[in-house]
Amino acid sequence: MTDIGRNWNEFHKTDIAEKLAFFSREGRLYDCLFSQQFDRGMLDHIFSVADRLRAATKTKAGADKVASLLSEKRAMLYFVQPSTRTFLSFLNACHILGLKTSEIRDTSTSSELKGESPEDTVRTFSSYVDMIIMRHPVPGFVEKTAWVMNRAKRPVPIVNGGSGKDQHPTQALLDVYTIHRSLAGGVDGKTIVMVGDLKRGRTVRSLSYLMKNYSDVRLIFVSPPELRMEADILDSLRRHGIPFEETQDFAAAMPRADAIYMTRIQDEHDVAGESKAVDYGRFCFRAEHLKAIKPTAVIMHPLPRRHEIEVSVDEDDRAVYWRQERNGMWVRAALIACIFGVDAKIPAAKS
Amino acid sequence: MTDIGRNWNEFHKTDIAEKLAFFSREGRLYDCLFSQQFDRGMLDHIFSVADRLRAATKTKAGADKVASLLSEKRAMLYFVQPSTRTFLSFLNACHILGLKTSEIRDTSTSSELKGESPEDTVRTFSSYVDMIIMRHPVPGFVEKTAWVMNRAKRPVPIVNGGSGKDQHPTQALLDVYTIHRSLAGGVDGKTIVMVGDLKRGRTVRSLSYLMKNYSDVRLIFVSPPELRMEADILDSLRRHGIPFEETQDFAAAMPRADAIYMTRIQDEHDVAGESKAVDYGRFCFRAEHLKAIKPTAVIMHPLPRRHEIEVSVDEDDRAVYWRQERNGMWVRAALIACIFGVDAKIPAAKS
Amino acid sequence: MTDIGRNWNEFHKTDIAEKLAFFSREGRLYDCLFSQQFDRGMLDHIFSVADRLRAATKTKAGADKVASLLSEKRAMLYFVQPSTRTFLSFLNACHILGLKTSEIRDTSTSSELKGESPEDTVRTFSSYVDMIIMRHPVPGFVEKTAWVMNRAKRPVPIVNGGSGKDQHPTQALLDVYTIHRSLAGGVDGKTIVMVGDLKRGRTVRSLSYLMKNYSDVRLIFVSPPELRMEADILDSLRRHGIPFEETQDFAAAMPRADAIYMTRIQDEHDVAGESKAVDYGRFCFRAEHLKAIKPTAVIMHPLPRRHEIEVSVDEDDRAVYWRQERNGMWVRAALIACIFGVDAKIPAAKS
Repeated sequence: MTDIGRNWNEFHKTDIAEKLAFFSREGRLYDCLFSQQFDRGMLDHIFSVADRLRAATKTKAGADKVASLLSEKRAMLYFVQPSTRTFLSFLNACHILGLKTSEIRDTSTSSELKGESPEDTVRTFSSYVDMIIMRHPVPGFVEKTAWVMNRAKRPVPIVNGGSGKDQHPTQALLDVYTIHRSLAGGVDGKTIVMVGDLKRGRTVRSLSYLMKNYSDVRLIFVSPPELRMEADILDSLRRHGIPFEETQDFAAAMPRADAIYMTRIQDEHDVAGESKAVDYGRFCFRAEHLKAIKPTAVIMHPLPRRHEIEVSVDEDDRAVYWRQERNGMWVRAALIACIFGVDAKIPAAKS
Repeated sequence: MTDIGRNWNEFHKTDIAEKLAFFSREGRLYDCLFSQQFDRGMLDHIFSVADRLRAATKTKAGADKVASLLSEKRAMLYFVQPSTRTFLSFLNACHILGLKTSEIRDTSTSSELKGESPEDTVRTFSSYVDMIIMRHPVPGFVEKTAWVMNRAKRPVPIVNGGSGKDQHPTQALLDVYTIHRSLAGGVDGKTIVMVGDLKRGRTVRSLSYLMKNYSDVRLIFVSPPELRMEADILDSLRRHGIPFEETQDFAAAMPRADAIYMTRIQDEHDVAGESKAVDYGRFCFRAEHLKAIKPTAVIMHPLPRRHEIEVSVDEDDRAVYWRQERNGMWVRAALIACIFGVDAKIPAAKS
Repeated sequence: MTDIGRNWNEFHKTDIAEKLAFFSREGRLYDCLFSQQFDRGMLDHIFSVADRLRAATKTKAGADKVASLLSEKRAMLYFVQPSTRTFLSFLNACHILGLKTSEIRDTSTSSELKGESPEDTVRTFSSYVDMIIMRHPVPGFVEKTAWVMNRAKRPVPIVNGGSGKDQHPTQALLDVYTIHRSLAGGVDGKTIVMVGDLKRGRTVRSLSYLMKNYSDVRLIFVSPPELRMEADILDSLRRHGIPFEETQDFAAAMPRADAIYMTRIQDEHDVAGESKAVDYGRFCFRAEHLKAIKPTAVIMHPLPRRHEIEVSVDEDDRAVYWRQERNGMWVRAALIACIFGVDAKIPAAKS
């Protein structure tokens, strides 16, 4: 245990870069908490593990072999905040690797009713399993859990399935993986257009942040003036020399895009119904736009969608948002395989 | 994709017989949506698969072999409408075959709260799994899901676990299987007495409908006048030349019965508490009736029961309603095995 | 079936000692319902099975072997009363042995809404599985379920996961196992100090009761005057010649303790908020007390805790309450292995 690990409040205020070592073991990721934990090497590795998992599981024999890799492990999915999508993605990722799963999806547990502290509750869960995957509404709580567990006699790795409004590292992972996988030559050199509620969308923030791992990427932020990308991300892009533009003109950005990342208006974060005043119609992708974009472009969306993408667009081959969801399951399985160190044991696909 | 598949509203209005091909693949059932999908050949085949599953799993080695048949597959149980019984039956049917399972049993999911369409929600679920088993209160929604999925790039089979007030095909399957299995010589030539709320009972409707697949069956409908079998079913019986009688005299029907199918009064469908006016006591099976029925007869009930069958009747060997429930699990396992095409791989039982 | 099994009301009133045979089969435990079922031989055996399970599962090969022992069985966890801790402990115990699991954690099921009797509901569940593990708020209901099932054509064993305010036999098991495992020489000859709400704590009652299976045990009950251990337990101790003391002086008891069993004030059982009047601060274990207890002593707690044990005590090696939780999982796995008769098949650990 490093010295910075002695006191939670002190630890919590420490810069993320400084505390990353605390969440690693034997030279590899142990707890997955922040998008900032992923560097280029790790991204490339996780993506290649995901690719190998997909290939290996195409046959029954391969899938059964993969499901034996972690058949002796048990994972707990502790989702205090409702999230069907992320929950199912992780659950099936576990099942692919053979992990047995337990789930708590209630917002209240009986022990909390009996006055137990949240830290004790999580520590109880850890008694029974080998990994905890959790989503929690309180900012920093997932990190605190990992901190507590790392100091316990029987630590188990913690995977962040969404914490507060800020960190959702596996969503960032699946977004980058989708671009990496869908575009010839991967992410390097591409123009990525992000559209919609950039101010409050957790996914566009992390995606932008992770672009520093790639060369020659250009970002175009298309949003209503009220919902522009926040200054901290723009500053970070400037610091890393990543060119970006801000505009309200979606039509002009379309033909330049290699990837178009659409987002839903996050009106659940409204303070006083301010979303109603936004003219969001200009930030939607309609069937008529299909002819305006490159034949090689991809249209992405973290889902759920409302009206940002017309349903008939789904049938176009460039609409990859359903594949993006499935990519999430594979990249999460890859991440879990890496944390448990079985990534090298995934059988090579038969050619 | 057939031409009729282009437009949902048009497709939905098409006669079931015409659209069955749309829900089949490679000459076998793909989506299981309607009782009308089962013809005699299919019924006989599914029942023989169910019998083989039971026999094969009597030993640990056989059960482990059966659980390896679909060990690489994952099923999603999406039960928007509460149904513990059908849910558990399907879940354990999956586990018998080795499928890993995820479940959504809430009536509301977080994504619906975020404004996602029901079709998108189901499509999301399909991203993670190889089959969706669903119960939904909206008539036609399970069919629409199957229609949407059949048009998607990565279709998965849909199994109807109860849709609206009308279709619940696997319940019909288990009822016929129970008669087939419990009576010497099977269903052909038998007299089946259905008792109680025939107007609103989904099970007696489907069971009557499926009788067209058998020869020389006679049906006796015993019900209060307010709760008689509806005209559409009676018309269908006439069309197929199946003799039936309607009566209020349960006592007279008892000695003639090979199978007695008791039902609960469906007062959850009452508009204005009209069930309270019905004298249901005359449509109950009591211990004293045991001496009035054939020694070879069977007493069935789709369960849950209230007072339609006295508890002490349970100990009689002719009371098969608990076995009927267990038959449901086996016949559902058989159906899933058929959909995935592993029915031929079930090991023969050692003699 | 013994004669006493014919009528439930009569059976229920029968002395537990007389009816134990009814819940055994082939000379071993079949239903696990009462703490009174455990004699010294059984306790020693279950604990040694638990030890062997832990040892055998330390390697992947061993864990996979253990998970094959009951891979053909299916268990149902039916927890009508919320209990995350016991639920997860049992669920993971099942997974260790390879059992597939279904769960009902709702307090209401759809069938109950349809007027089904609780006995019918449980019998339905039993149709699908090979074991039911249940928690139920109604005193005697778990026993009644076992009674009903034992008379059914296809019985399945019932395991009590907490019934009413009285019986929670696997909690007693894990508490004794923790003392057995943590103290050199086991339970015999030890002084056990129980602290807090002894009147309403189910765990301290069963733990006291089970002490009759050990020699030379001494019990010290430390509690506020309002929350003293009840007379029935004290009488039973006197009958078995187990020396005990009652005191309010925790400080004097501390240095004498081999095991200190702390408990939470059970204010959920308050009739009129009477717990608020209790000065519970005197019945808490604080970091400063660590120097007052033996170097070999252990501090236990059934958890969840509130303030009875200061969090900083967790880091002391003598604080075993987290290990106690994990012991619960192992001892439950051992119990299940014994019920299914696979205890002899647990592979010996490689040295």
